[in-house]
Amino acid sequence: KPIPRDLPGNHIQRFQMNNVKASAQAAQNKEKVLILTPLARFYDEYWANLVALSYPHSAIELGFIVPRTKEGDIALASLDKAIKLTQSSADKFAKITILRQDNTDTLESQSEQDRHDLKVQKQRRSAMAVARNSLVFTTISHDTSWVLWLDSDIIESPATLLQDMTLHNKDIIVANCFQRYIDDQGVESTRAYDFNSWQESEIGLELAASLPEEEIIVEGYNEMATYRALMAYMNNPNEDKHIEVPLDGVGGTALLVKAEVHRDGAMFPPFSFYHLIETEGFAKMAKRLGYQPYGLPNYLVYHYNE
Amino acid sequence: KPIPRDLPGNHIQRFQMNNVKASAQAAQNKEKVLILTPLARFYDEYWANLVALSYPHSAIELGFIVPRTKEGDIALASLDKAIKLTQSSADKFAKITILRQDNTDTLESQSEQDRHDLKVQKQRRSAMAVARNSLVFTTISHDTSWVLWLDSDIIESPATLLQDMTLHNKDIIVANCFQRYIDDQGVESTRAYDFNSWQESEIGLELAASLPEEEIIVEGYNEMATYRALMAYMNNPNEDKHIEVPLDGVGGTALLVKAEVHRDGAMFPPFSFYHLIETEGFAKMAKRLGYQPYGLPNYLVYHYNE
Ligand SMILES: Nc1nc2c(ncn2[C@@H]2O[C@H](COP(=O)(O)OP(=O)(O)O)[C@@H](O)[C@H]2O)c(=O)[nH]1
Ligand SMILES: Nc1nc2c(ncn2[C@@H]2O[C@H](COP(=O)(O)OP(=O)(O)O)[C@@H](O)[C@H]2O)c(=O)[nH]1
Ligand SMILES: [Mn+2]
Ligand SMILES: [Mn+2]
Repeated sequence: KPIPRDLPGNHIQRFQMNNVKASAQAAQNKEKVLILTPLARFYDEYWANLVALSYPHSAIELGFIVPRTKEGDIALASLDKAIKLTQSSADKFAKITILRQDNTDTLESQSEQDRHDLKVQKQRRSAMAVARNSLVFTTISHDTSWVLWLDSDIIESPATLLQDMTLHNKDIIVANCFQRYIDDQGVESTRAYDFNSWQESEIGLELAASLPEEEIIVEGYNEMATYRALMAYMNNPNEDKHIEVPLDGVGGTALLVKAEVHRDGAMFPPFSFYHLIETEGFAKMAKRLGYQPYGLPNYLVYHYNE
Repeated sequence: KPIPRDLPGNHIQRFQMNNVKASAQAAQNKEKVLILTPLARFYDEYWANLVALSYPHSAIELGFIVPRTKEGDIALASLDKAIKLTQSSADKFAKITILRQDNTDTLESQSEQDRHDLKVQKQRRSAMAVARNSLVFTTISHDTSWVLWLDSDIIESPATLLQDMTLHNKDIIVANCFQRYIDDQGVESTRAYDFNSWQESEIGLELAASLPEEEIIVEGYNEMATYRALMAYMNNPNEDKHIEVPLDGVGGTALLVKAEVHRDGAMFPPFSFYHLIETEGFAKMAKRLGYQPYGLPNYLVYHYNE
């Protein structure tokens, strides 16, 4: 039997993984970005900011994982409507994938206060970690250069978010997540929201060493004073927006990761990993894989205020 | 602007992950199987056995990762030839993906003896772990039901391998890997080859607890007596081929995993994870994710004998 020179299309794909570049010239090179959002609540401002992104939309894919709860159903309906409008416009994205989350891992709706209760944090963040893993390992493609994790309640972010963050050309880099609020005097003000981006401290390490294997440290609780250096408190509006700091833990509200890092196996541990979990555990796992996370204390995105 | 009822094809994909079934009726249901092989050496018998698989080939995708070494180039040339023949025949597989491994992680060719030297094991298996992660997280698709890890030097395996192993409907299940050899009397005989499938022992746990964090235990070395119960030694040709035993460590020579397990984040740690690495570390990580690995002590595949 003769060997055909050309094989029927699509039967063999050959990839030189080293050729999938993730560089500081991401937008010019049209490097493919996958924007991933675990989505329990839908915010119009979040979608408007996605649509307003000035990075070429033909190089952007979106992925969502929506819990199988009443809240998830409502969010999905809004997402569907938004997608229909955008995908039939000039702003359309290259591809959109929506996953529904396995029932077993979903928690029912919680208020900001309930969600942040220390006791429910481990269970909640463990479910979030599995959702994030399913999402990235279902949607990542051989030609994805970057993965941007963006929470659905980030209601203010710059149109140049992708260019600004890829410019740093880091394997992992996270923006600083703040929140607007009205202070006691009725004046509009801002405050830190996400405390998961930090630099480890001696006391944090000692605390970790003293804990039983299964116990996790979650940042931002008085019950567990770690004296870690929190990126939330490194913000200085008078300094350069592009100052970088090395980090040991990262939050997931606006987190840019080179796709290679995930392909190498960096996942979000839903179990205690060096007493860390989810995005903070991800930073530790990435470090064990040889990558160094960074943060941008002066580059802000804003979280919805319930 | 009117909202179109039907969106242009391919723009939105919606997946209910719970609908991707992996069941005991895999072949009848044509559940999609992804067969993954890190490939440094190509064996004709290995390929012949793939082609001979009686599982519907239209439901089988193949994925390879080949090191960027002289040995890898030679293996790739043979693989290419084999693929060309098969893909232009009635036996063709649904899709074949070939990745080249990043240079940094590749070790030059080694003989069976050199490869198994305890000192080089950590470095070798760490590189193998990253290669396995890249391979699975590049090729796994939203509709993959099963992942079969099959080493390229498995030169004897049954045509019913996939049916036989999926029949057990386990999240993780591993065959027993033996090797044919000629004994002192010149008689053809068989012996255990892969010692990475085992049940943990008290002594193994104590040994692990005594080790510095970074140090790993690799099974099958006199230098580290763990007294673990090795599946290699549980083989009994007089018993049922389908006997199952629960395991704490698994080898990767012929290892079947439900795709969901990898999507949930189960990867091959290239670093010390509970003093385990690569496939053994994978078993531990899967356990931490809530999955129980099993082995088939009487279900044999055979490794090439150099
Ligand atoms: N898939 C999924 N997404 C969720 C779930 N709970 C929250 N989310 C989303 O995950 C992100 C972070 O969750 P959120 O509750 O805002 O965390 P917090 O701001 O740290 O309290 C947001 O984008 C939410 O919409 C859940 O159970 N499943
Ligand atoms: N991608 C890749 N595959 C490798 C490398 N070294 C070995 N392999 C393949 O990985 C599998 C297991 O490796 P092998 O050397 O046979 O391990 P052993 O039998 O446990 O000594 C086989 O399929 C090899 O062809 C490597 O450096 N890179
Ligand atoms: Mn939030
Ligand atoms: Mn081998």
